[in-house]
Amino acid sequence: MSDKQRENGRRKLLEQIRRTGPIPRIELSDITGISRATVTTITAELLQNGLIREVPRESAEPEGRRGRPRVDLVIRGDSHLVVGAKISNNRLSLVLLDFAGAQIDTLETELSRATFEPQELANAVLNAVDQLAQSAGYTMADISGSAIGIAGIVDAAHGLVYWSPSLSQRNVEFGKLLTQTLGLPSFIDNDANLVAVAEKAFGLGQSHSDFIVVTIESGVGMGLVIGNEIYRGTRGCGAEFGHTKVHLDGALCRCGQRGCLEAYVGDYALVREAMTMPGADPNADPGETIEALLRDAKAGEATAKSIVYRAGRVFALGLANLVNIFDPQLIILAGEQMQSDHLYADPVIAEMRKSIVQIDKAPPEVVIHKWGNLMWARGAAAYALDNVSEIALSELNEHAA
Amino acid sequence: MSDKQRENGRRKLLEQIRRTGPIPRIELSDITGISRATVTTITAELLQNGLIREVPRESAEPEGRRGRPRVDLVIRGDSHLVVGAKISNNRLSLVLLDFAGAQIDTLETELSRATFEPQELANAVLNAVDQLAQSAGYTMADISGSAIGIAGIVDAAHGLVYWSPSLSQRNVEFGKLLTQTLGLPSFIDNDANLVAVAEKAFGLGQSHSDFIVVTIESGVGMGLVIGNEIYRGTRGCGAEFGHTKVHLDGALCRCGQRGCLEAYVGDYALVREAMTMPGADPNADPGETIEALLRDAKAGEATAKSIVYRAGRVFALGLANLVNIFDPQLIILAGEQMQSDHLYADPVIAEMRKSIVQIDKAPPEVVIHKWGNLMWARGAAAYALDNVSEIALSELNEHAA
Repeated sequence: MSDKQRENGRRKLLEQIRRTGPIPRIELSDITGISRATVTTITAELLQNGLIREVPRESAEPEGRRGRPRVDLVIRGDSHLVVGAKISNNRLSLVLLDFAGAQIDTLETELSRATFEPQELANAVLNAVDQLAQSAGYTMADISGSAIGIAGIVDAAHGLVYWSPSLSQRNVEFGKLLTQTLGLPSFIDNDANLVAVAEKAFGLGQSHSDFIVVTIESGVGMGLVIGNEIYRGTRGCGAEFGHTKVHLDGALCRCGQRGCLEAYVGDYALVREAMTMPGADPNADPGETIEALLRDAKAGEATAKSIVYRAGRVFALGLANLVNIFDPQLIILAGEQMQSDHLYADPVIAEMRKSIVQIDKAPPEVVIHKWGNLMWARGAAAYALDNVSEIALSELNEHAA
Repeated sequence: MSDKQRENGRRKLLEQIRRTGPIPRIELSDITGISRATVTTITAELLQNGLIREVPRESAEPEGRRGRPRVDLVIRGDSHLVVGAKISNNRLSLVLLDFAGAQIDTLETELSRATFEPQELANAVLNAVDQLAQSAGYTMADISGSAIGIAGIVDAAHGLVYWSPSLSQRNVEFGKLLTQTLGLPSFIDNDANLVAVAEKAFGLGQSHSDFIVVTIESGVGMGLVIGNEIYRGTRGCGAEFGHTKVHLDGALCRCGQRGCLEAYVGDYALVREAMTMPGADPNADPGETIEALLRDAKAGEATAKSIVYRAGRVFALGLANLVNIFDPQLIILAGEQMQSDHLYADPVIAEMRKSIVQIDKAPPEVVIHKWGNLMWARGAAAYALDNVSEIALSELNEHAA
């Protein structure tokens, strides 16, 4: 067996134990296709290094059976702790997981504003992580790694934020900055990608290999799972669903271009149109404006209906384009805000179904999964868990080499 | 080593030998990460079953070196023959390859019309394959498999054509029908996917893991390579680039929906607009109409320019959407028709670059690769080669089990 095969074997077995443990060795071999002898060797290493442990089998087998007591393998939860965080508009949401993926504690905290200097934002994350660790009876030194989801254009592999509404600068090596500031390995990704990670790890995507997650907050986000893996593009700026164009020379987008999906369905797009309505108060709070708009539309007011109706149809068109290109098994519409109710609505899904290529086979399933910021943070934590596992395994590999 | 590992090892080694042979065993082990012992075992099986052969090394090593003569491994070209074919409007293009991928012969033949009953079309393919085999000094019985590219919506995995402009019926099990009619294992795929297979196997995509191929004929096609593999969607109807919507309630498409890309850039879209020009002859030949339109646009005639200009801008918008979603390394614009010159033009590429999400990193490379129907057929043949290799290996696996 080559080093690379052994390395892959370790990764595969650790993942499998995390997913399905408690699990006996023989079943690990059956599921992964790794030979029993190799499973025995690798699990011995993982045991010795404290990443997994043996637990007695809770067996339905008849009593009185002789021989060695049967054992299953589980992840040793206390071997590592990880933090996942989501940075949203004015808010930090954090979750602390053990190495088995069990949730230990959470924290939600307000930020003083929406946009920060990179070091300021890193400090805010440090404070929150420190506070979370302490409230759970730990210190920063007990944490093995963190991952942070942030809105914007993020090259996850290089920890680079090309642009984010949360940062006052472009091209920030934010992963490196967080690693230095927190004093622990820290990883970043686009927030919508981490929702896709969460859906794959413990959400509606667990049993699907190819699916799309669409998120609506102030922007429109998207995460893409292809062949059970998150697809992140080759420059780290794929899945920019909100900036796909739905109209040549169309409405002006915050990004400076015209005709982006976001320029029709984003909250600022709705506010912009609402401000054109007779009697609109130019000083009104944007959130209240949208609330009033959606209320008026529901009540049948013609202009409000027209604004909301078009947003829904443009969103349906965008979704149909994703289906026409990817042909996924499943589309998950994720988010927590009431504001997306008019987009995550039956007539919009029906419109999308009418706008895809028609074949004599059912269109992809569409599910709406409402969840809060803490679930986004869990996605980040799952990403941290992947990365910390890689680090732990690479130490094992170096040791073995 | 498990059966599955051995199976994967066989596939991997055969692929590697085809790609890089003549190659010594030790290098096969280094490149694939498969242990030397396993390489020795598997290549012995492949030798015994006649799929590969040994050739003396053409060595730069000093003369007079003692010991066993060094050998490299190559695919045994004569072990299998495959046919690849492309069905286009009124035309069948075929290529005959040996198992090493070397081209033996080609054939191009006219079809009597554009749309056929499934059995009629299968018969036409049979006649052409038979003629090609004979002209190369073989019979049908010498051919191990075929693959055919066809325009339309194709579920390659199930050999099912949901819809094709070449077939008078929907939902045709055309793979099965071809297998029966030709009397040899036959596979089908969407023609643009097979262009992507060809680009990956022996074209501009050889050194890229993630790229998009866009084709323009009477429709607009697309093939998608993600992580070195063709991505075919989950129902077999992905990559429908021509039917992504670029305008809400836009121009009417042949598919019956409104606002599809094809309804702006397809030849029928150009003809439709040209027919609105003053003095247009409603009985003119569509091909001549387009030629005249493009000529007039080049000469500066305002209406012709406006028609061609919008088609180019809509095409740029569609391409930008693909980049915003996939963030590929490379976009290959493939095709042979002069008709796409106005779309594969510098101003269109420049417009696409302006319409993608702007980051401080170079946009994906765009290359134009003009080729004829025979190159499409080579893509089909590469797909046949993959499938015939699978069959040969599965026989090996059964034998070994």
